Amino acid sequence: VHPSLRRELEAVVGADHVLTDPGLRATYETDWTRRWRGSALAVVRPGSTDEVAAVLRLLNEARVPVVPQGGNTGMVGGSVPRGGEVVLSLTRLREMEPVDEAGEVTVGAGATLTAVQEHVRPLGWDVGVDLGARDSATIGGMVASNAGGIRVVRNGTMRAQVRGLEAVLADGTILRRLPGMLKDNTGLHLPSLLAGSEGTLAVITRVRLALVPTLARAVVALAGIGSIGDAAALASRLRRRLPTLVAAEAFTAEGLDLVVHHAGLAAPFSVRHPAYLLVECAGAADPLPELADALEAEAAGMLADVAVGEDEATRRRLWLLRERLTESISGAGIPHKLDVGVPVARVGELAERAPQVVAEVAPGAWVVLYGHVLDGNLHINVLGLDPEDEAADDAVLRLAISLGGTISAEHGVGVAKTRWLEADRGAADVAAMRAVKRALDPRGILNPGVLLPPE
Amino acid sequence: VHPSLRRELEAVVGADHVLTDPGLRATYETDWTRRWRGSALAVVRPGSTDEVAAVLRLLNEARVPVVPQGGNTGMVGGSVPRGGEVVLSLTRLREMEPVDEAGEVTVGAGATLTAVQEHVRPLGWDVGVDLGARDSATIGGMVASNAGGIRVVRNGTMRAQVRGLEAVLADGTILRRLPGMLKDNTGLHLPSLLAGSEGTLAVITRVRLALVPTLARAVVALAGIGSIGDAAALASRLRRRLPTLVAAEAFTAEGLDLVVHHAGLAAPFSVRHPAYLLVECAGAADPLPELADALEAEAAGMLADVAVGEDEATRRRLWLLRERLTESISGAGIPHKLDVGVPVARVGELAERAPQVVAEVAPGAWVVLYGHVLDGNLHINVLGLDPEDEAADDAVLRLAISLGGTISAEHGVGVAKTRWLEADRGAADVAAMRAVKRALDPRGILNPGVLLPPE
Repeated sequence: VHPSLRRELEAVVGADHVLTDPGLRATYETDWTRRWRGSALAVVRPGSTDEVAAVLRLLNEARVPVVPQGGNTGMVGGSVPRGGEVVLSLTRLREMEPVDEAGEVTVGAGATLTAVQEHVRPLGWDVGVDLGARDSATIGGMVASNAGGIRVVRNGTMRAQVRGLEAVLADGTILRRLPGMLKDNTGLHLPSLLAGSEGTLAVITRVRLALVPTLARAVVALAGIGSIGDAAALASRLRRRLPTLVAAEAFTAEGLDLVVHHAGLAAPFSVRHPAYLLVECAGAADPLPELADALEAEAAGMLADVAVGEDEATRRRLWLLRERLTESISGAGIPHKLDVGVPVARVGELAERAPQVVAEVAPGAWVVLYGHVLDGNLHINVLGLDPEDEAADDAVLRLAISLGGTISAEHGVGVAKTRWLEADRGAADVAAMRAVKRALDPRGILNPGVLLPPE
Repeated sequence: VHPSLRRELEAVVGADHVLTDPGLRATYETDWTRRWRGSALAVVRPGSTDEVAAVLRLLNEARVPVVPQGGNTGMVGGSVPRGGEVVLSLTRLREMEPVDEAGEVTVGAGATLTAVQEHVRPLGWDVGVDLGARDSATIGGMVASNAGGIRVVRNGTMRAQVRGLEAVLADGTILRRLPGMLKDNTGLHLPSLLAGSEGTLAVITRVRLALVPTLARAVVALAGIGSIGDAAALASRLRRRLPTLVAAEAFTAEGLDLVVHHAGLAAPFSVRHPAYLLVECAGAADPLPELADALEAEAAGMLADVAVGEDEATRRRLWLLRERLTESISGAGIPHKLDVGVPVARVGELAERAPQVVAEVAPGAWVVLYGHVLDGNLHINVLGLDPEDEAADDAVLRLAISLGGTISAEHGVGVAKTRWLEADRGAADVAAMRAVKRALDPRGILNPGVLLPPE
């Protein structure tokens, strides 16, 4: 970074918060997947929204590209430099206001999910989205990437949690719409537009979250079932009967084998089933009677084995079979992880055909898949591939698109998937996105190379 | 409209669907409030998305302004011509596809809410938003205006019901994102941007709706309470305990008096209370026990009178006290209707101060207010005013803004409120909206004069 620009940046945020030393920059230059890394001109760590605005004004003036960064827990390379950018780290913006009586809270973009959870849970409220990276993932990053997770069927993605937003445009203009209103029909809803924009339109500095009530009573059921498709179909029918449904996850026999082997957990049933469906219901009252009624009405004859957890220890034990999947798969090799989605009605087709299309291009590979079936979202892990060989990735993404689906249900596009974007969204959508991008960031300094493919 | 353009339009949609005769145009030129009207160059009624695209290409080429129109049930003049536009009526696009097993359905923008309700309810699903104008209001119009209503606390506004959208840009480009996925993280979420854009960015032609399960058991409680502010505070505390809460409405003694007088309904209690809170809980199981527990824990000593309805007839009777308010107020005069919102924690302040600020500028006027307290949304009706005198309107809108609120919680901006927009959203937000508008509609043909104030 040019010495005069460096001095100007230091004048804004203080010399301690402009990092140019390679050793100090290092943790900001590699994400947690270790797949994505690049060299930054400098790392700048503003301590307030006004400082963010002043820094962006300087960088926009100088046409220096910027990579906004939260907890750096993304999966698609959207928050690390590709080379030659300034990293704008938002982790110092971690102030949290008190929770108001309506269950809303305003927090700095750099507050971690764990910090916010600890702030709100003692008051009977919770954040509607939860995910494994909670200790590092920041609220701003979760909004910018529209994070999902396992409660989406109940609470929606991060976009649905955002009641208001403060963000800074590339030219330093501060957008501030924080009052916290569920209904606010005064034109274009910029918070919804910025959610999922992956740092390409503005830098999010504060978020007003609509919290969800903590649910007192929960029950978990795990059932052996004939296929992932049967699991998706049954979960859909259960949802129609069960307003208390908060999660519906499915995995295969191969996945369970890995968890039993790598995580050392006990198999839930004496018989091995082709697939498993885990559902959780929760409410203020005991949700078991209505879950039992719904299973009897919708699943009669379909389910050979059902395990039910009412107490916390049993619920936890059943959930672990699903939660330890990621690490158990990684224990078996370095997977190519494809986070695709299709309309729920086509989940079965996706699950059946994904191993076939992989086998055609990579005969030695094998597929372990699992997912959030009511979101239409399967995580397809391909093992036994060369890290650089993308033929299997291509085949799976093409399959998802051919089923009317998406190349990314929750991880986002980042730099990893820009080359597939147009095949997924179509040329008209991409052109419209590009027009909006140009309108809000005319010089193209915000996260270039992320989300939109090069022109 | 120029004869050659007329011939070209007729070639696209057929001569029967280009209306230029004043008698035929009339119903398209006045909205149901009868407050808004204007003369159209012509009314064009395309029968397919491709026809919409072809019509827009012609009008964009000729730089003729267009007013997209659904059921024409808006409150703010956004769907009727101001004079000199072509009205693009979408009511012929009313095709409905079958409901899929995941509870999603794709419908034409011109399908009425009633038609969709009748299509989906027999299958155990429902549309998440309901409103009084259901027989005329179209799904496309409801998305374009991001309609709300009385179930928002449970289901969100129309923006939250939209799983996918097909829309046509001003230049005839068709955007098509209909697959129906709850999670789809491939960049800017155009459906969320178009929801609430009031026909200024694109013409919505088809909508994929995420339906909600029909809830089998419901209970309604109506309580006398000390003030609207107490009602909002109690409702917030109940929400934290009651995941089954689907509605929370409040009204005042003045409102109840009008309903008793004009609609001839019986007062619910022998004593007159300053305000009333109506809550509904619903689920697959009987929600009464948890409602009773929550009221006992949160409202002990606060409520003198509580009426509970478990059977449908009693629930209906309690709801009528709230639902007949609009017509009862209109029976007492022609109200100025202000649809403002504030953070829920400030609803009490808004309710208390609105009559005061009105009295200062219009001593002969009186205020009847009611609203969706958990949405922070009060409908403030001012009676006894000259129809053209906007001093009271100004005072109420200014009050809402000063409380960190919004000039429109659900009706939208339309032409009615553009002059207040910048005071509400701020110059930076309005500039960002304008930049997005210019990016997607460079010639400014879509609904000029609506939403954004003239430059």
